[in-house]
Amino acid sequence: MRVHKPSWQTRAAEKRASVLARIPEGWKLTPEDLAKAKSQRDITGFVQQYLGAADASIVASNASDIISRLKDGEFSALQVAAAFCKAAAIAHQIGNCLHEIFFDQALERAKALDSHFKETGTTYGPLHGLPISLKDQFHVKGVDTTMGYVGWIGSNLGIKDPSQAHKVESQITTELLALGAVLYCKTSLPQTLLFGETKNNIIGQTLNPHNQNLSCGGSSGGEGALQALGGSVLGVGTDIGGSVRIPAAFNGIFSLKPTPERLSYRDVANTNPGQNTYRSTVGFLSTSVTGLELALRATLSTEPWLRDPAVVPIPFREKVFDEYRSRAKMDGSASSKPLKLGILWTDRSVGPHPPISRGLRLVMNALTAAGHKVVDWDPPLQATAKRVHLAFLKADGGHDIHSNLDLSGEPLIPDLEATFKLKPPFDLLKYQGLTLEGLEYEAAYCDYWNSTASQDDNQIVDAVIMPVAPHAAVIPGKYYHTAYTEVINLMNYSAAVIPVTKVDKSIDVVPEGDDAYEPLNDVDKRNWEAYDPEIYDGAPVGVQLVARKFEEEKILAIAEIVTAALTQMGTYSGAILGANLRSTPGPDA
Amino acid sequence: MRVHKPSWQTRAAEKRASVLARIPEGWKLTPEDLAKAKSQRDITGFVQQYLGAADASIVASNASDIISRLKDGEFSALQVAAAFCKAAAIAHQIGNCLHEIFFDQALERAKALDSHFKETGTTYGPLHGLPISLKDQFHVKGVDTTMGYVGWIGSNLGIKDPSQAHKVESQITTELLALGAVLYCKTSLPQTLLFGETKNNIIGQTLNPHNQNLSCGGSSGGEGALQALGGSVLGVGTDIGGSVRIPAAFNGIFSLKPTPERLSYRDVANTNPGQNTYRSTVGFLSTSVTGLELALRATLSTEPWLRDPAVVPIPFREKVFDEYRSRAKMDGSASSKPLKLGILWTDRSVGPHPPISRGLRLVMNALTAAGHKVVDWDPPLQATAKRVHLAFLKADGGHDIHSNLDLSGEPLIPDLEATFKLKPPFDLLKYQGLTLEGLEYEAAYCDYWNSTASQDDNQIVDAVIMPVAPHAAVIPGKYYHTAYTEVINLMNYSAAVIPVTKVDKSIDVVPEGDDAYEPLNDVDKRNWEAYDPEIYDGAPVGVQLVARKFEEEKILAIAEIVTAALTQMGTYSGAILGANLRSTPGPDA
Repeated sequence: MRVHKPSWQTRAAEKRASVLARIPEGWKLTPEDLAKAKSQRDITGFVQQYLGAADASIVASNASDIISRLKDGEFSALQVAAAFCKAAAIAHQIGNCLHEIFFDQALERAKALDSHFKETGTTYGPLHGLPISLKDQFHVKGVDTTMGYVGWIGSNLGIKDPSQAHKVESQITTELLALGAVLYCKTSLPQTLLFGETKNNIIGQTLNPHNQNLSCGGSSGGEGALQALGGSVLGVGTDIGGSVRIPAAFNGIFSLKPTPERLSYRDVANTNPGQNTYRSTVGFLSTSVTGLELALRATLSTEPWLRDPAVVPIPFREKVFDEYRSRAKMDGSASSKPLKLGILWTDRSVGPHPPISRGLRLVMNALTAAGHKVVDWDPPLQATAKRVHLAFLKADGGHDIHSNLDLSGEPLIPDLEATFKLKPPFDLLKYQGLTLEGLEYEAAYCDYWNSTASQDDNQIVDAVIMPVAPHAAVIPGKYYHTAYTEVINLMNYSAAVIPVTKVDKSIDVVPEGDDAYEPLNDVDKRNWEAYDPEIYDGAPVGVQLVARKFEEEKILAIAEIVTAALTQMGTYSGAILGANLRSTPGPDA
Repeated sequence: MRVHKPSWQTRAAEKRASVLARIPEGWKLTPEDLAKAKSQRDITGFVQQYLGAADASIVASNASDIISRLKDGEFSALQVAAAFCKAAAIAHQIGNCLHEIFFDQALERAKALDSHFKETGTTYGPLHGLPISLKDQFHVKGVDTTMGYVGWIGSNLGIKDPSQAHKVESQITTELLALGAVLYCKTSLPQTLLFGETKNNIIGQTLNPHNQNLSCGGSSGGEGALQALGGSVLGVGTDIGGSVRIPAAFNGIFSLKPTPERLSYRDVANTNPGQNTYRSTVGFLSTSVTGLELALRATLSTEPWLRDPAVVPIPFREKVFDEYRSRAKMDGSASSKPLKLGILWTDRSVGPHPPISRGLRLVMNALTAAGHKVVDWDPPLQATAKRVHLAFLKADGGHDIHSNLDLSGEPLIPDLEATFKLKPPFDLLKYQGLTLEGLEYEAAYCDYWNSTASQDDNQIVDAVIMPVAPHAAVIPGKYYHTAYTEVINLMNYSAAVIPVTKVDKSIDVVPEGDDAYEPLNDVDKRNWEAYDPEIYDGAPVGVQLVARKFEEEKILAIAEIVTAALTQMGTYSGAILGANLRSTPGPDA
């Protein structure tokens, strides 16, 4: 007897429907509402009209404020959870940014936290009652982890051990719950995770809420979109080539990419974990830099290294954080020992579009005005590092990816056909040779860094300001050059992304005549030609701040200072998400 | 015109002669002396007869004492350097333990340090005037690094960049010099580094000074032998499978194997550095546990992570060290919070010989008497981990090794023919699959460790006492089972070796009749049958103390406590090197 096995298309459609079905009827939008959202370029303020003033105020707060208010008893955990569940439900309907919805779990847990608070008068932990969204690589009991694969639907470990489906919990999930967080949804990502946009055969595509012409970025793209829409203030993502930095920059939010062994990746679904030379890292995305600090401080307080042998035993170093934070006053202006920051204007392979260059200048101007030192940064050519890093991602010839595709028969998405077509794996000697090239590049970069003390100041650069990509949120299909993020992964450096401004078609014009850009090569030409001020108008512009390995406390302190300096300059006025949210609270729903 | 190229045998013979030629005439032994040394079983006290009382007293001191006396002005750096140069010169003539001799550099430097001390009244650094020996992987300007390869003679980077020969300095060499150390010789090692004995085609073989029937161990074997002979009190080695632990155990000294990323391996010669999944680590060997502490504290004070991007930025954590040190009084007796230590009696694959089991019991008894807790240790089977780890060492099919052999045409030494015969490299998917197996083993071991808190004490095991090998210093050619050390490398744990006792043929008899050992498998049988109390009599017995990743301060503090407890029990009387040296000072030379 032949059992009829549904096609992958059918399974994907059923999965999409089942996620939508978990949204309560009262939170469902009408076809008219959906059409209206679809027709707008910028939908970052769209969700608010469906929220009451109280809920709108909650989701417009930052993570630290929410926690303070929960601690003060001003908000209940249930109230906060309900606000974020509703916002996320609407965000998903207009933004297609969620893979899993488990509001029931969230509301139950919030009630339990409220009981705890009522009974003991104390919070359950440092993240008491804070809703946190997770990229769909993190296992949460009771729900799928599909990671965008049709073949993983109904499971959370592929087919490895079906008896464990929906019973596994990633270590960091356990930690967040132990800290008092409320988990409520998992966010969309691209097939393979190795793509700077967010597309897969289950949900299709997630676009950019700031500008629906553009991609939300990837691979933690659903996370970025959800936060831009007001559906989350703190989320957990991963980054092996830019995946928490790109979505942050593209969606006008903040992110932290730590050095891989700082946070636990144990029991997290991943692409080809046997490639352990260049490792993916768990990172955070947030609507505030303090949200990132909160998340790092809290997770490290659980001593993750005791349970995950990959994690290096470095607690949150308050001393390091304070040391760097004291380099400026609250407004970002330099203290007696100013920061010295490098700026990478271009990697001399693919030059950034005008809005990105302007973003870098804004940061430079803000820092200079605040009394900090800014110098040009000219490290060993990124091209070498990018070649090596990309080779590792492709070294198994797509074997791991195809074994997951084959579970359902789904194809690669067209964007990835050329990169991940099934091929023979690399020869091991080539693989080991590439390892050496990578190590040599790291050493050369380290030497360059150490060479940046000038005779005048005897001060090595503290951190470096770099583009995240050569463009703002990319036009779908036109992400040609990932070196700006990938090179940082090759060196396992720590990095933070901060929003700077938005593309403004009236300022960010294409230089012409004598000022016209002369592309350095074919990729540079294609990238340059993809810039169109009309299309890009309104897209967020972020930069990454880069420090060396395991310097997370340092880069967060510096991110605070740079953000303060930008705020002081007035750069931010209306530029990023928070302003939108705060300026458009809707009527009581 | 054909240029005559000398045979590898000729080049090796010339190299041997050139090293001996660097020994001053006055320090050369007569053929009669050499014959006498050769005829003795135990030559650990042999060197002393050629030293004056002052020099004998210097080389019999431990590293901390020497430094104190240099600081007090009791010793001059020149006096100390001359004493160690002479002792090393004699040690090499009877023990064949050096690859390079550069006493001229050492004495010049010592003079410069004395001048500095005279002029400033202060020492140059925390290692001021301390002679330190280096395994022949570390580059020192002006001399070869052959790493036992004939093809590297006259160079220190193989053929990679001949113009740089003798100009390169390993980062840790630079650090030691910056700290005030005096470098004077480089010690022997086995061809490939991947062998538990010390044999190569240049110098032949280094035997065990305690018992010349036996091997000095490997791969940092020359270092172990030199210290046993009184020619060094502190040396630098490396360990990818036991290479600083085995020679320490076999030669009755101490060693520290840190987690790989704790100390700098930058610009150090190595076997197949492209295999970066399971990394070799720099470690220290010393005649005292305080020598290890001194070395770690000093090198970390230079912040090696700023220059070597592989090093994790963890300074010497005095707080951690003090916390564990305070778990016992100076005599090793437990304070209010006793240590809880596991003991691995056997890995259930190859059981230890009677002297090793007795050594473990001695440690258990000493600790129990001192009021600490000792429990059995029964981790996931080592066989899995050993298989995975060994596979990585062999994965390139011997390609790197053979490319170095081919430089001169020398063959593999017979001991390694079977293991490193040139073969096709592994398939990459197999390699990545093995990586996953290794990660899973690590996770399982971590879970086991966390499970060791009992209901009574709620206390997880602090560290584990294990055999270093299933035998004391091995009979050449009979090292069949390296799992006891290799498994610790698979997990990148930190470990220290301490001496415990010596084989005593009158106690360590082969159990017979009902007590006869029943081997578990063929390897176990071969190992068991290789035990002969007559041959082994007098060989040192050490154990390794194992803590988790980056717990170097903890394991050193525990090593101090265990050593103190053993001393308190009287276990050490006459058992180890120090006693020999101190009891036989010769007449003034």
